[in-house]
Amino acid sequence: MTEKGESDLRVRTESGVRDLRAVWFEDGAVRMIDQRGLPHKLEIASFSHYAQVADAIRDMTTRGAPSIGAAAAYGMCLAALSGADLGAASERLKAARPTANDLFFAVDRMLGQLKEGADPVVAADGYADMMVDKCTRIGGHGSPLIKDGMRVMTHCNAGALATVDVGTALAPIRRAWSEGRRFLVYASETRPRLQGMQLTAWELGQEGIDHAVIPDGASAYYMGKGVDLVITGADRIAANGDFANKIGTLDKAIAARHFGIPFYVAAPVSTFDFGTADGGGIEIEQRPEEEVTEIYGRRIAPDGSPALNPAFDVTPAGLVTGFITENGILGPGDIRRVTGE
Amino acid sequence: MTEKGESDLRVRTESGVRDLRAVWFEDGAVRMIDQRGLPHKLEIASFSHYAQVADAIRDMTTRGAPSIGAAAAYGMCLAALSGADLGAASERLKAARPTANDLFFAVDRMLGQLKEGADPVVAADGYADMMVDKCTRIGGHGSPLIKDGMRVMTHCNAGALATVDVGTALAPIRRAWSEGRRFLVYASETRPRLQGMQLTAWELGQEGIDHAVIPDGASAYYMGKGVDLVITGADRIAANGDFANKIGTLDKAIAARHFGIPFYVAAPVSTFDFGTADGGGIEIEQRPEEEVTEIYGRRIAPDGSPALNPAFDVTPAGLVTGFITENGILGPGDIRRVTGE
Repeated sequence: MTEKGESDLRVRTESGVRDLRAVWFEDGAVRMIDQRGLPHKLEIASFSHYAQVADAIRDMTTRGAPSIGAAAAYGMCLAALSGADLGAASERLKAARPTANDLFFAVDRMLGQLKEGADPVVAADGYADMMVDKCTRIGGHGSPLIKDGMRVMTHCNAGALATVDVGTALAPIRRAWSEGRRFLVYASETRPRLQGMQLTAWELGQEGIDHAVIPDGASAYYMGKGVDLVITGADRIAANGDFANKIGTLDKAIAARHFGIPFYVAAPVSTFDFGTADGGGIEIEQRPEEEVTEIYGRRIAPDGSPALNPAFDVTPAGLVTGFITENGILGPGDIRRVTGE
Repeated sequence: MTEKGESDLRVRTESGVRDLRAVWFEDGAVRMIDQRGLPHKLEIASFSHYAQVADAIRDMTTRGAPSIGAAAAYGMCLAALSGADLGAASERLKAARPTANDLFFAVDRMLGQLKEGADPVVAADGYADMMVDKCTRIGGHGSPLIKDGMRVMTHCNAGALATVDVGTALAPIRRAWSEGRRFLVYASETRPRLQGMQLTAWELGQEGIDHAVIPDGASAYYMGKGVDLVITGADRIAANGDFANKIGTLDKAIAARHFGIPFYVAAPVSTFDFGTADGGGIEIEQRPEEEVTEIYGRRIAPDGSPALNPAFDVTPAGLVTGFITENGILGPGDIRRVTGE
C-alpha cells in the first residue's frame, strides 16, 4: 500500500513522484508519515505495539480526525494480532486525544468486528479504505462549489495527511483542480503548530495548486477583499450541527458571516457525534503552552509569560452554510435526515 | 532622559529597575530600544544621521505609530543640527513606512517649528513629551472602563514601546492596575512579528500585570468564554472613524461585535487623518513574505509556497464602541466635534 498508483498524496522525490497514504499497515507494523517533520523532512514512522500507536496519536506524529481514526483502527489490529486484551487496548487508544469523534468511532467499530471474528488486517484496511472512499465522494459533492477564478480559504490541514488520503476540506479543491478549473487557495498558517503552512501548503504545492500562506489574523482582511468560499474540516460535529475544529475556525466562521461568504464544513458522517446534543458537550483539548511559547525548541515568549493553547474551538451550526459529506451537502437542519440517524 | 524616574517602561535588570523611553535624544544622537531583540535582549541603538533613523523606522528597530512619530521628530532634529536639507530629510523620513499617520504628523510639525526657528532638540523633545502626556491622559480617560475581575483583550503592542512611554491601549490597563484593580489581559501573539507575545507580554510582565499569551486564532474562543473589553491601538484613523491597525485587528472587531463585547480604540488625536475620508483611502503596507515564512532566519514554510504579509487591516467605524483619546472617549460620530477639526 506504500505505492498506490491512485493516491492523491503525491510526493515529489529525486526518484520521481511517490504515492503514499498518511497511515497504512505493512509487514506486521503500522506505518505513518511523521507529520511533525514536514515540510522539510519526509520520514515514515513504524510501530509494532498498539501503545506506540496511542503515543503517536497523542504526540501528533499523525493528526487529523480521519487519520487518527485509521491509526487507531490499525492500533486495534496490532492488539488483536498480538493477543492483547482488546478492552484495555481500546481504552488506551481512545484516551490518546479527547476531541475527534473519529477516534472513538474507529475503535468501537474495530472492537465490534474483531469480536465477530474479523481478520484484524482486513478490518483495519477496510476502515482506512472506507475513509478514503468517503473522502473521494466528499470531493465529488463539493467540487461543483468551486468555480474558475474563485478565491477559496481553508484553515489547518484537512488534506490527505489528515484523512489517510484525498482529504476532507481539500477533497473538493483537489477535484475541482483536476477537473481543470483554476482558482487560488488561501491557506491560513494555523498557529501554534502551523499545520496550514506546513501541511496544507505542502500538499497543495505537491499538486501544483495555486495557493498563498497567510497569517491567521489576515483572514478577515482577505475576506474583505474578496473570498468566495471558506471550507474547513471538522473534528467532531454535534447532533445540532455545532462543530469542533482547529482553533481559529470560529474566528473565520464569524468573519465569513460578517462578509456574507459561504462557509462549508467537509467531513464524513463518522465525524458526527449524535450522542452530543450541541457544542457545549464537546470537550476541548488544552495542549501544552510550549507549543505557543517555543518554536523548534527555542523560547520565543518572554520568560515568565504564561500562554494558553486550546487546540480546538466550537463553531455554532448557525454559521455553517452546509456540511459536505459522502452522502451529499446538507444544511444544519438536514443532519438527521440525510445521515439516517 | 534615559533614566526618568517616572517612566512607565520599567525594565528589571540585574542592577535593579531601570526606567527607559522607547526613543530619546542624548549626547547628539537618537537612541532607541531595538525592539527586534526583545524579549530576550535589551539593546539600545544609537543613530547620528537622519537617514539611519529612517532606516530604523523601516526595519522596525522601533515601531508603533507614536514611537515612529517621535523617532521621525528626532530624525528631523538630527537633520537640522547637521544643516541638512530639511525638505529632503522630511521626504526620506516620511517614505520609511506608509500607514501610520503619526509619522507624517510629526515630520510636518517639526518642519513647521524648525522653519520658525525652534531649537531642534527642544522641539523634538517637546514632541516626545507631548506624546507621553497624551498617553497619560488616554490612561486616565480609559482606566474607568476596566473593573475588578474583568478579562481584557488586546492585540499587537500599543504599549510604552510603541508610544515613547505609557502606551495607548496599554495606558488604561497600566492605570487601572496601578489604581489597585485586578484583571487578566489576553495578549494575542500577533503573527507574523509576534509583537503581542514579545513586546506586550514583556511590558505586562515587567509591570507584574496578570496576562496570558494566546494565538491570534484563539481570540474568538476566549471571547465566547467571556471577554469584557477589547482595546487596541491604531495606526491611522480616517475622518469617518474607519481605522488601520495591525493585521488581525479586524478579525477581533468582527468577533467582538458577534459576541456583544465593547471594542475600544486608544489613540492620540494625532492618529486621526482628517484628509482621508474613510478607510478605503488608507494605504496598507505589504511587508516581505519572509516575515511569515521564516523565523529567526529559518524557513518554516514549504519551499516554493508563497506567502502574503499585509501589515495592517482596516476596521470600519461601525464596529468601534469608542475612541479613547487624550480629550476623552468619543464615538465614531463625535470625532469632528471633540477633536475640534
